[in-house]
Amino acid sequence: MTPPMLDRQSADISTAQTANGWLARMREKRITLAHGSGGKAMRELVEQLFVTEFNNPLLAALEDQAVVPLDELQQQGTRLAFTTDSYVVNPLFFPGGSIGELAVHGTINDLAMSGARPLFLSCGMILEEGLSIDTLGEVVSRMKHAAREAGVVIVTGDTKVVERGAADKLFVNTAGIGVIRHDVAISATRARPGDVVITNGYIGDHGIAILLARNELALESSVESDTQPLHELVQEMVRVCPDIHCLRDATRGGIATVLNEFAASSNVGIHLSEAAIPVHETVRGACEILGLDPLYLANEGKLVAIVPREQADPIVEAMRTHPAGRDSAIIGEVKETPNGAVVMATAFGGTRVVDTLIGDQLPRIC
Amino acid sequence: MTPPMLDRQSADISTAQTANGWLARMREKRITLAHGSGGKAMRELVEQLFVTEFNNPLLAALEDQAVVPLDELQQQGTRLAFTTDSYVVNPLFFPGGSIGELAVHGTINDLAMSGARPLFLSCGMILEEGLSIDTLGEVVSRMKHAAREAGVVIVTGDTKVVERGAADKLFVNTAGIGVIRHDVAISATRARPGDVVITNGYIGDHGIAILLARNELALESSVESDTQPLHELVQEMVRVCPDIHCLRDATRGGIATVLNEFAASSNVGIHLSEAAIPVHETVRGACEILGLDPLYLANEGKLVAIVPREQADPIVEAMRTHPAGRDSAIIGEVKETPNGAVVMATAFGGTRVVDTLIGDQLPRIC
Repeated sequence: MTPPMLDRQSADISTAQTANGWLARMREKRITLAHGSGGKAMRELVEQLFVTEFNNPLLAALEDQAVVPLDELQQQGTRLAFTTDSYVVNPLFFPGGSIGELAVHGTINDLAMSGARPLFLSCGMILEEGLSIDTLGEVVSRMKHAAREAGVVIVTGDTKVVERGAADKLFVNTAGIGVIRHDVAISATRARPGDVVITNGYIGDHGIAILLARNELALESSVESDTQPLHELVQEMVRVCPDIHCLRDATRGGIATVLNEFAASSNVGIHLSEAAIPVHETVRGACEILGLDPLYLANEGKLVAIVPREQADPIVEAMRTHPAGRDSAIIGEVKETPNGAVVMATAFGGTRVVDTLIGDQLPRIC
Repeated sequence: MTPPMLDRQSADISTAQTANGWLARMREKRITLAHGSGGKAMRELVEQLFVTEFNNPLLAALEDQAVVPLDELQQQGTRLAFTTDSYVVNPLFFPGGSIGELAVHGTINDLAMSGARPLFLSCGMILEEGLSIDTLGEVVSRMKHAAREAGVVIVTGDTKVVERGAADKLFVNTAGIGVIRHDVAISATRARPGDVVITNGYIGDHGIAILLARNELALESSVESDTQPLHELVQEMVRVCPDIHCLRDATRGGIATVLNEFAASSNVGIHLSEAAIPVHETVRGACEILGLDPLYLANEGKLVAIVPREQADPIVEAMRTHPAGRDSAIIGEVKETPNGAVVMATAFGGTRVVDTLIGDQLPRIC
């Protein structure tokens, strides 16, 4: 089911090296404190790696800030969306993706959930002394491809190096900006009784993929992270239903956490149907063995939307025509009660409360 | 010379506690992995600390992105400035400031150097399990005050927690956006023979303050970091001289690194006069003992500008009326040669090349 990951990784590394030759031009093969000093070594790293790979004139200007023309914002009522996320996932590479894809897709998705068209990203790296430049190069290459495929540009960045043991290999922060058409008014407070709950596909893949990649599960099965950008899917959703009430990507804490936030912010009860929620058999199996609940597992390419009932069928139909929404499904509905809570009709005919967790024991999942 | 730092710190902590009482409302007194999980514990931390302290409706909406109206951008030709920096300074608190002030001032200054008016910041925290909530609260309080004094708003954020030993206490990333009036065209490529080099005051204070705070120097003297926001000073400079050619804040790598970048990008020679460069006696003394050069020491509130000669006196005069520019001085001039290099007439009548360093041995200075 999963393509052999290591083969794919090494293929990517050799592509990056052949295409750009940047690795050959680097003086050092490991990150040293000098790469964070502001001097020649840092400039070499920035020019040979980041500027070459992220290749665009705004970044190449090497100023401490990017200056971006935003003609679209000159239309009356258009607004700017602004977001940030740090990424500390462990391990850096896992089936279906890496910290690089997460850093690009995650921030794109946070922008997309406001209905924004993502335009520009920043990239702040915190590197541990001794990190292999190969590994850094591979992460940067993944970010480059993810950004290019999603149509966003990485226009500004920063690199810090800390001494060995003061960080774990590599942390990435991306911030992002995008523009919002003035007729979108998405908010966690807008769920109304009668509305319908939609998701765009199988949940929990990312969480299980990371656990498997850490060898924390004694399981043979393999699951790929669902990391993917959702902005084009959301644009399609907005086209069909400009009046989407609530929309959020279900990352840390899973769809249970997002739906609890919607229920609390909107003072409504959200009723899920377990049978309608898409969960891969391998994910369900891993959850049963480990006593995990797929509703709380992290996703990196799944959203939860709450829409007016009369728009539900057309929006799901439109979502299914998009690669990121092929398995979209109606998974529940909004009622007046229980106020501020989420409940689920189980596959066995019972009903249970889907509460917010205090925390979970899956650190560094993204 | 330095006000007693610990007193000031504890005063700030008690103010924050008395004013908001957030610490009393926190369930835990130390950061746990649950604070990064996406569940209730994280929400408590975000609501009780970040939302309470950074107090503004954009952040309080608790969406995954801030939506900001930018009416100013609707003026033809106005552009957006976008920047990011991560902060890993060690120690977290030092005479004159903390990682909190750096994270706000540093990103404000990167925006300001394009002539932009800084408007909105993001705040991404990477926390080490076991960090005292007191310490985090103090950093957040410092950020709040720095942002308020500078007139910027922290509108979006993210919190990640890594296990003990995977990070050193606390790293902060801030990204920032601002707007640029259409008649400013600052660039590292615009230095021209005949131009004049200006700085806004004493250099090297931040670098020496950090070294002293780490007890790496066997010196009794005390130096305060110069951390301060420069956007209002820059607005004043732009008002007097809209045609500023080059402008950059001299952080890591010091004024030597910035001037080398200007010389290389503009293909000119930059000639400094050592006698004209403001250096505090304590900083000069520490440098002599340790064999450091103040030109390469980090600053957190100093800029270097290159301006047309006929504008030099009026701009310095205007800068001196501003608290952040009281000690502004002309420190050199631009000639055709030596092409791409910086040289300095020393106090003893000689001339020396001020080269770019490969790296330096002062990690985690910011």
